[in-house]
Amino acid sequence: MYVVIEGIDTAGKSTQLDILKEKHKEAVFTKEPGGTQIGLKLRQMALNGEAKSKIAEMFLFLADRAEHIEEVVKPNKSSIVISDRSIISGIAYASNLPLEVVVSLNLIATDNVLPSHVVLLELTKEELIRRLGNKENDSIESRGIEYLIDIQDRMKKTVKMLNLNHRFIDASLSIEEIAKEIEEFINE
Amino acid sequence: MYVVIEGIDTAGKSTQLDILKEKHKEAVFTKEPGGTQIGLKLRQMALNGEAKSKIAEMFLFLADRAEHIEEVVKPNKSSIVISDRSIISGIAYASNLPLEVVVSLNLIATDNVLPSHVVLLELTKEELIRRLGNKENDSIESRGIEYLIDIQDRMKKTVKMLNLNHRFIDASLSIEEIAKEIEEFINE
Repeated sequence: MYVVIEGIDTAGKSTQLDILKEKHKEAVFTKEPGGTQIGLKLRQMALNGEAKSKIAEMFLFLADRAEHIEEVVKPNKSSIVISDRSIISGIAYASNLPLEVVVSLNLIATDNVLPSHVVLLELTKEELIRRLGNKENDSIESRGIEYLIDIQDRMKKTVKMLNLNHRFIDASLSIEEIAKEIEEFINE
Repeated sequence: MYVVIEGIDTAGKSTQLDILKEKHKEAVFTKEPGGTQIGLKLRQMALNGEAKSKIAEMFLFLADRAEHIEEVVKPNKSSIVISDRSIISGIAYASNLPLEVVVSLNLIATDNVLPSHVVLLELTKEELIRRLGNKENDSIESRGIEYLIDIQDRMKKTVKMLNLNHRFIDASLSIEEIAKEIEEFINE
């Protein structure tokens, strides 16, 4: 089982991942980017803006993804892998190339290994504005509300396009309600 | 003008590049991988075997290539750029995926910017055996004669497939003869 938790920043992924860690001691918890040794370096290079070219930056994330799938997901997915982000964020954030190109690049990186369960924590624009007001902005968040809502739309499109087993969950529900929905979905 | 010097190890690229550096003080000399700051890091990560996944390793080289094209080749090709290796080596060495896939990935990395002049220093198998006998083997060379001859074939196929303006030069000619051929080709 390969479960991924997706959502734009402030959607509440970390909170739900903490709850999952308590409940699923048997699972391998991981993340993209940065779920491997080389992935940590690549993530840092990308965050530092070391790649001036946007295409080069995308290839850094694809290298991270390829290594993560090969070294973490494939060896563990016969039991349970739970990942903070995945190919879905990868596709959603790479908006500098046509969608079909980005999708094929990502399928090469993942060797066609796809999540068995996608949880997407979904925010309305109003709720996003409220939450961003309560949090110090990082570089992605500072690109603005419209940008993040657009990314969220791309995430949803990606899930549907790849025909993935998914649950879109209203992120404004209580922490407990969301946790319950996720648990039901995983145990279905 | 975007000139690239290609050839397998021991073909004599460095010697010819040294001669070109003497003759063309106006040119920007560069290389792949490692022609940019981030490229140097990525090259080192690849050489150290930090990417366990072969696909991840390929993406490291693609990131290097994308950055190199954007930061070094594009800004200078209206004058003269001379590069030690290029997309041709990139395609020839990536033998873990179908050729047409590797070609499209590399064209994305180079944003379709291709060399205006390709010099390929070509070795016969006999000459390669002789030269390797005289040199300490590095990791690529130790993979053997057949491997290197196969890479050289892939380089030639790539040049033809991309329909690049090229000169295949017999690497067993004297250093001066080769230098003269290269000079003629560049000045054509």
